[in-house]
Formats: sequence, structure tokens, C-alpha cells
Amino acid sequence: MRIAILAHERFPDDAKTAVGVLRYGDHDVVAVLDREHAGQRVHGHLPDVQDAPIVAGMDDVPDCDALLIGIAPIGGGFEQSWRPDVVAALERGCDVVSGLHYVLGDDEQFQRLAAEHGAEIRDIRRPPDDLTVAAGTAGEVDAHVVLTVGTDCSSGKMTASYELREAARERGIDAEVIPTGQTGIMISGWGIAIDRVISDFAAGATERLVEQAGDHDVLFVEGQGALVHPAYSGVTAAILHGAQPDSLVFCHVAGQQRVGGYESFELPDPAAYAELYESMAGPVSGATVDAGLLNTADFERNGADEQLDRYGQALGVPVTDPVRDGADAVLDAVLP
Amino acid sequence: MRIAILAHERFPDDAKTAVGVLRYGDHDVVAVLDREHAGQRVHGHLPDVQDAPIVAGMDDVPDCDALLIGIAPIGGGFEQSWRPDVVAALERGCDVVSGLHYVLGDDEQFQRLAAEHGAEIRDIRRPPDDLTVAAGTAGEVDAHVVLTVGTDCSSGKMTASYELREAARERGIDAEVIPTGQTGIMISGWGIAIDRVISDFAAGATERLVEQAGDHDVLFVEGQGALVHPAYSGVTAAILHGAQPDSLVFCHVAGQQRVGGYESFELPDPAAYAELYESMAGPVSGATVDAGLLNTADFERNGADEQLDRYGQALGVPVTDPVRDGADAVLDAVLP
Repeated sequence: MRIAILAHERFPDDAKTAVGVLRYGDHDVVAVLDREHAGQRVHGHLPDVQDAPIVAGMDDVPDCDALLIGIAPIGGGFEQSWRPDVVAALERGCDVVSGLHYVLGDDEQFQRLAAEHGAEIRDIRRPPDDLTVAAGTAGEVDAHVVLTVGTDCSSGKMTASYELREAARERGIDAEVIPTGQTGIMISGWGIAIDRVISDFAAGATERLVEQAGDHDVLFVEGQGALVHPAYSGVTAAILHGAQPDSLVFCHVAGQQRVGGYESFELPDPAAYAELYESMAGPVSGATVDAGLLNTADFERNGADEQLDRYGQALGVPVTDPVRDGADAVLDAVLP
Repeated sequence: MRIAILAHERFPDDAKTAVGVLRYGDHDVVAVLDREHAGQRVHGHLPDVQDAPIVAGMDDVPDCDALLIGIAPIGGGFEQSWRPDVVAALERGCDVVSGLHYVLGDDEQFQRLAAEHGAEIRDIRRPPDDLTVAAGTAGEVDAHVVLTVGTDCSSGKMTASYELREAARERGIDAEVIPTGQTGIMISGWGIAIDRVISDFAAGATERLVEQAGDHDVLFVEGQGALVHPAYSGVTAAILHGAQPDSLVFCHVAGQQRVGGYESFELPDPAAYAELYESMAGPVSGATVDAGLLNTADFERNGADEQLDRYGQALGVPVTDPVRDGADAVLDAVLP
């Protein structure tokens, strides 16, 4: 699929979804829309992802099948300055894919244009209508299920999932990621935003995803939130028990000591936090923390190595920084 | 408020909501509707709750302000055999209160009748539209917050909350229950069904309830689900961290060893389970398990005492069966 990614005025630093799709997606990205950086190329900013031209708007985008909204302003609203690009995409018959809270499919103009030009609007945050409570059966899939968990929301769980998949695929293993949040869904083209599911059905939605992909040999389930987060622990627990993992990968940002955005709350130290995940997983699926992934982006190489050493000693399992060093070093520890 | 309670063919054994309202509610119950038991009285079945006549339908109900749907069939559907009673109530100008999944307010006939006769239809499972993520501030209320938690879904958490409130009020303490499920909402006339809130907002909804009632001296928050339940742990965790309790009351059904409806999952033993709740509560609010409530309904007096002894030794805190013996014996342990 050939796609264009809208990231006006935010590429690359505030465009997590756009960057995720460029880095991990299977799509052929024909252009990134950012009117502030028009005329440049993706590689000028990010040399290690798929390259593409940066253009000012849809008029400069070559043939493509879909326009992805690759940025998410705080609050998840739709900025009216994006409207001409969405309109132009629909008029060309391009699908439009969005993870915003604002439902593009409910917008009258977009609805009409999509119908006229045979284009589809996909609001990927909207969960399926037919979800139910978990049956407690995810553990019965043949696949080996690995769940990424962490000490906070942005602790690297999504990145870990895709880096682990890449490392596994390089060894010829049939591995897949289970996307549970909007960026993962954009990258993989399927999944459910578990945080938008009513809480009674959150474990059931996770179970459904695992069972849908159960014919792969290894599944890396993207975790969400954190187990003692003041606001999001419910999402985390639902995924932990809904997915019934065999193995946990524990993610942390080196040096972080407080909950992001909730600074009055201290993070438990990583070793105690990892144990808590095991205690919670135990009675349902018996998963243990078998590897640690550490984001050391704030450190130079020497400092990073020191952080990794300390992290590995605290957890007592193999560790790596997947972005800096790849995930292969911990893969054996999480495979059956 | 004078109310009638609809419980056709299910009173009292399959009418948890009706019985809860009769036992703990402040309303004046003028009749229970059960066509199978018409002509009898509530006290013929349940001598220890508010008495009322049992009647065949709304035609036999004296003046009243509201009709409550006091039963919830599996699936939460509306049975068409109840329609004449709902219609008759609305035609009399009576409000209708329902906790069913089926939204009575969306039913065209009910909608029209309510408008014609100035009656209100209240679908209490429907959460407010303006919920948000938790700010992490519930711990700042002046009230002392006690959360009831347990080993399974029907482990007595709602009963515990109301029995503890009663014991506290008998001592002259300004105590209130925070209802988080449909029966509690029916009894108290306010609250939010947390299991129907999207998982991102479940802790935030709990926080809002605690803050709304924060001017009472003691709050007993009704917990939901269980922390290692294969389907509902997300709801439990969201309430645990959203409410930021000072104290936990741990509920269990004597002798139960497996998760109800999920028999392939063993319950952790009560002492380990209570510790897990403390480990999960610790980093956010530091609450400890300060009392144990045990449902010993399956035992004779001697057996019950033996169960209570064993439970108290395992938990190392005061314990009681609140239905058999009242909650006063553990009240000191959970108050500040």
C-alpha cells in the first residue's frame, strides 16, 4: 500500500505516529506532508528510517492509496488547517486513516466526499461494536505470547514490540506484533485501541486480538500504561490478564524516577516493579519478566553502558537498549 | 422518595438489586412487583429488610414517585413482559430507573410517554459524557477513604460497604458509600458504573466520585471485580488507583478456591492475595488491608466461627461476617 502521512508543523519531533509508521510499517510511504519542511526529505531528519520527500500538501503527493493522520495534538482534536489535504485525498479516492479522538467519519463533508469518490474513512480509535467480556482463553493459543510492560506510559513498549519482531524475523521466526494503541494500529493496519474500550471489555478485546493472530509462532503484544500508574493502571491490568502472556519484557527510561505528568508519584525501583508485574501475572498466566529493555537516549555510550549494567543487575535478566543496540541480545531470553 | 421495584419471577433469590435496595436504601418501598408471588409480603421471604407488599403489576401499586427495575437477566436485556408495567408507570408520571444494558431512554414508546407525562427515564449504567483521565488527586480529599476489595466478583464488596456505613453511622460518624456498580447506584441514587466507562477514564470516574463526596468524614468505596481476575482486573485496578484509599477491607467467600465462572483459574490464598492488593496500592496511596470480611453463609454457626478464626489468622487483622454479625467489630481497624 502506498501512503502519504500528514504531519504538518510537527515532523519529526512531535509526530510519534508518523515516525513509527516510517520506522516499522510495511507501507510504501510516498510523501510526508509538513508545510514547514516542504522540499526537504525524511532522511535529512531521520537517517535510519524509510526515506520519503516532505511536501507542503496533497497537491504535491504522487499516486497513493491512503492518507494517514500522523500527528495527534493534545486533546486529539482535528485542526481545520488540515481540512484541504483531507478533502484533496478523498477527492482523489484515497482512503483516510485517523487515530484522532475527533471522528472523521462523522464529519459531513468528509462523509459526502468519501461516498462520492469511493474512498474509505477509517477512525482507528473507535473500537468494534461487538466486544464482550474475556472468556479467559488467550492462554490456549499455540503461539508463544510475549507482552511488553513498563514503568510508565512512554517507556518504550511499542518500540520494544516492533524491535523484538524485527530481531525475531531476522532469525526467520514467524513473529507478529499485537497492536493495542493508535500508533501500533497505524503501523500494522489492524488492532484495537484498548484504552477506548469500556473497561468491562478491555481484557476481552485483548484476548480477541491474541486469538486472531494465534496462528503465528510468536506474538509480541504491545502493552499500555503501567501497573501502578495513577490514571492508566486499569488498561495495563486488562491487557496483562487478557493476553495471558508466557513472558514479560520490562521497559524503562534510564534515570526516570517519577510518573510522567504525575510528578508527585514516585516510580517503584525497577526490580520491585518487575516483581509486582510477576505477582499480578502469576495467578492468571504465570508469566515472568525474562528481559529488560532500557531507553538510554539521554546518555552517551559510556553512560548508557553503565545504565544497562545496573539495570541488568537489578532485574537479573538480559537487557538491551533496542533503539541503540537492537533487540537480538534479549531475544533468546523471551523465546520458548 | 416512594418507589416500586420490578422483580417479576425472580424475587428474592435472583433479584440482587431489589434486595439491595430493600436492605440498604433510604427509599420508602411501597411495593415489589412479582407476578409469581403476588399477594405475599417481602417479610415472608426476607424478615430482616424493609417490608412491602408483593403485587402482580403497576395497577396494584399505590402512589409512588419511581419504578426501579430490580432484576438483571443475563445479558442485561429488557423483557417485553415488563413493558406494560413500565408503560403504566410512565403514564402515571412515575420516573423509571434502570440499570439494564438495554437503554430504556432510547425506546421510542417510553421516550414519548415520559415526555407526555413529565416523567424521567434514568439509565444508570450510562456513564456521564464528560469524563476524563484521572488527575491523581483523590488522595487530597479530607475524608478518610476506605475501599472494599476482594478475591472475586461476588465476594461481598457492596454489602461490606453498606454494612460498614451502617456501623459507622450507628456511632454517629458522618459516613457515605461511593457506589461504583448498578446496585449501589440504585440504592444510593447516585454513582457511576465504572465497568461501563472507557478504560482510559475509569480511574478518573472513580476520582470524580470520591471528590464529589469528599466533604463526608468517612467514605466507603464499593470495589468491583478482583485484582487477578481473568476478565475484570482492569476495573479493579482503576478503582484502586483512582480512589487512592487510605485503607482496604478484604472480602472473601469462605471456602471458595476458584474464580467464579472461570473455574480453570485458582484463587491465590487470601493472605497472599491481600498482600498483592497492598503491593499494588502502595506506590499510589499506601493503603493497607486493615480488616477482613468473610461471607460464611454456607456454614452453620460453629463452622462459621472456625472459618472466621482461620481467616483472621491468615490476614492478621480483625475479621467479621458483616451479614451474620454486623461490621462494628472491624470498624475501629479501618477508621483513622
